[in-house]
Amino acid sequence: MSVEFTRPQLDALRADVAQGRDSAIQALLADLHPADVGAVIDQLQLDEAVYVYRLLDSEMAAEVLLELHEGLREDLLASLTSREIAEDVLEHISSDDAADVVADLSEDKQREVIALLDDPEHREDIEELLTYAEGTAGALMAKELVIVRTDWTVARAIVEMRRQAKEVDHVYTIYVVDKDDRLSGILPLKELLFSAESTRTLIEHIARTDAVSVNTDTDVEEVVNRMKKYDVVVLPVVDGKGTLVGRITFDDVMDVMSEEATEDYQLASGISEDVDATDSPIVQVRARLPWLLIGLAGGIITSRIIAQYEDQLRIDPTMAFFMPLIAATAGNVGVQSSAIVVQGLASGGMGDMRIAPRMWKELRVALLTALVCGFSIFTINFALDQSQALTYTVSIALFTVILTAAMFGTVIPLLMDRLKVDPALATGPFVTTLNDIFGVLTYFTVGHVMYHFLN
Amino acid sequence: MSVEFTRPQLDALRADVAQGRDSAIQALLADLHPADVGAVIDQLQLDEAVYVYRLLDSEMAAEVLLELHEGLREDLLASLTSREIAEDVLEHISSDDAADVVADLSEDKQREVIALLDDPEHREDIEELLTYAEGTAGALMAKELVIVRTDWTVARAIVEMRRQAKEVDHVYTIYVVDKDDRLSGILPLKELLFSAESTRTLIEHIARTDAVSVNTDTDVEEVVNRMKKYDVVVLPVVDGKGTLVGRITFDDVMDVMSEEATEDYQLASGISEDVDATDSPIVQVRARLPWLLIGLAGGIITSRIIAQYEDQLRIDPTMAFFMPLIAATAGNVGVQSSAIVVQGLASGGMGDMRIAPRMWKELRVALLTALVCGFSIFTINFALDQSQALTYTVSIALFTVILTAAMFGTVIPLLMDRLKVDPALATGPFVTTLNDIFGVLTYFTVGHVMYHFLN
Repeated sequence: MSVEFTRPQLDALRADVAQGRDSAIQALLADLHPADVGAVIDQLQLDEAVYVYRLLDSEMAAEVLLELHEGLREDLLASLTSREIAEDVLEHISSDDAADVVADLSEDKQREVIALLDDPEHREDIEELLTYAEGTAGALMAKELVIVRTDWTVARAIVEMRRQAKEVDHVYTIYVVDKDDRLSGILPLKELLFSAESTRTLIEHIARTDAVSVNTDTDVEEVVNRMKKYDVVVLPVVDGKGTLVGRITFDDVMDVMSEEATEDYQLASGISEDVDATDSPIVQVRARLPWLLIGLAGGIITSRIIAQYEDQLRIDPTMAFFMPLIAATAGNVGVQSSAIVVQGLASGGMGDMRIAPRMWKELRVALLTALVCGFSIFTINFALDQSQALTYTVSIALFTVILTAAMFGTVIPLLMDRLKVDPALATGPFVTTLNDIFGVLTYFTVGHVMYHFLN
Repeated sequence: MSVEFTRPQLDALRADVAQGRDSAIQALLADLHPADVGAVIDQLQLDEAVYVYRLLDSEMAAEVLLELHEGLREDLLASLTSREIAEDVLEHISSDDAADVVADLSEDKQREVIALLDDPEHREDIEELLTYAEGTAGALMAKELVIVRTDWTVARAIVEMRRQAKEVDHVYTIYVVDKDDRLSGILPLKELLFSAESTRTLIEHIARTDAVSVNTDTDVEEVVNRMKKYDVVVLPVVDGKGTLVGRITFDDVMDVMSEEATEDYQLASGISEDVDATDSPIVQVRARLPWLLIGLAGGIITSRIIAQYEDQLRIDPTMAFFMPLIAATAGNVGVQSSAIVVQGLASGGMGDMRIAPRMWKELRVALLTALVCGFSIFTINFALDQSQALTYTVSIALFTVILTAAMFGTVIPLLMDRLKVDPALATGPFVTTLNDIFGVLTYFTVGHVMYHFLN
């Protein structure tokens, strides 16, 4: 069922759009999965995309909308009236997706669209979901649940489940609540397969009571960690009183994982907004320029430091030869160290991320690394027949910057984490720039001493 | 149910281990989830871990083993006899986990352990799974399935499902096969909830036939993309003939996603093996040193390039001031460009990653960036009252290296992808080092020309 359009197929679709062959287009897309239709529409120009979108029946159209790239989705939504959004989109999708769509609208349009929703329960669900802060379990959950009560018989539960399941797209687990609507347990599919055998059994006797749940204000990162740790396909969400209020499914968690991985990767690579290859050059420049300007500012500071040692460069210009080597190594070591910390913090669990033990361990790694690198460069410069002063300066400076870069790279993300700043910000150009500056400073300081003693 | 031990609790457990208070330890861990027990044992020394592990009943012990860090798991397995591994571990876990455990053993031990398995079906399943190449769907799948046939009645299917479900830990979906065992469709929980209403209906009339499946030799990256795209909790795996041979569940896919994200992040940060903060200093050094040595080699090449321009440095040592700025900016731009390509390649889909259009787009981004950065540094150097020759040299060189670094950063990962090398290798120190070298070369070449014309 997985279908991807080739370029000729896409060109044929474009020709159909240009010539208004509606039934050909509908026939082409009729049997595809909404995700596949979304992938096709993502490749079109906005006007073509709107044209094709309007040819889809509303059930399909609503699903397809959720699959589009953010930019195109917003443009498409902007081309729809409030009534179209309410009736043709929101009525056909689950509460969490609907809340996401509504959240992207202007405040005026949000009110209009919500007021136009026919189903009062759907309206209340969406309104509730909009109240949770972004990045919390509440903002991620859906309100559609299949719920049975502890004191029901299996026979009654089956009748109720059938009724409720009509409203829920995918049923992964049946939730069990007590008389106060508090989460009491779950009824996995496996239990259910056997339960029909004895229709007079009470639900409380077959429910599993060890369900892992999260709170509405649990951080999404913790939601991800918990789902991964306990291998559960869906997490029930409870409020402060333990009342079952929603569920988070694996697909939402996978999306969060992808977003977080992309964000960490981009921050490590010096890209500050979520951009991808399809974004316009302006958007890409906006995401990349801040980091380059930080690097530029660092470069200017470095130039001022070197200027202080101009006399030394006049005496021995060969000192300039190894500046890039020192700066690059300091930068590389710093990025490695901070990457290890950032990953340790992200994986959570009980990995020990206290500052002192972490630095002590990193110091041992750095010492070993510094010895190998320092000795290598000493041998090479000796072989290259560099001056004694330069040979010692480069080796000692390299040894020193590896140690300091490792310490900076370790302590900065740890401190940022303590200060509740995303430690991933520390990696990439930020730590590199700092270590560039400090590396050059170290190099010339060591050089100053060495040339004083050895000449 | 989510439990994390505090440090005092962990110290108390250690004291219990030291004094052999077995029943206290068992009571402490009795009601915990295997993942929580695993997290606790991960914090212990090997001898303590073995002691606690041997106190667990074998059902729990087998589950806990799967939750441990790789290093500790291997050490623990080494302390078990072949019979213990077969009877106390493998018999209690599903075929995919069992195959993973067996794969970590030496070849001799693999044969011994497999021969000791009592259940012939489990043995065959494990042996089959070991034949698939790593990184394919076959190696990731489990053999435990609940299968019904198209020509069965619902009544018969329910009896069969109950029998089969006893062997499967989690039932997410019921698979439907035709008379030749070929995958024909699925029976979601929702369908099943309604199916009991008419026990004489044939399965083929209630099955959904649009199941997304993968092949045994499908790449795991494609498995991840497909599960994310179609939001399915479990993917059936078929062989070349379409015969249903296994299933891949969301939890395995989440693990793959985490591993891939970690690998990309670490490669971008210059770490070549999967290491984390808990690994020994030696292991960490081994993962980090190769990249530093590449950087060091680059630094030596750079030093030889600068040496060619020693005369120029003697005439104007201030040229040395801006070398780090040029090298750092070239490095930063290159990493950004390659990150965009690597992410574009990883997200797959139909994002256009043909070389020429991608380079043209990147060139526009780079031109804009180069103009802003070049103009900034020109203004700053003008304000700092640097010599005319230096001011022009730095600005023009910066402009040039931003363009070339963006082109290198774009084309190298694209070429690596064409050559079937992981393009993520291109990011991090590799591209940085290349751009360092090229940046310094550009800087001095431009300087050579400028000083010739302006003095």
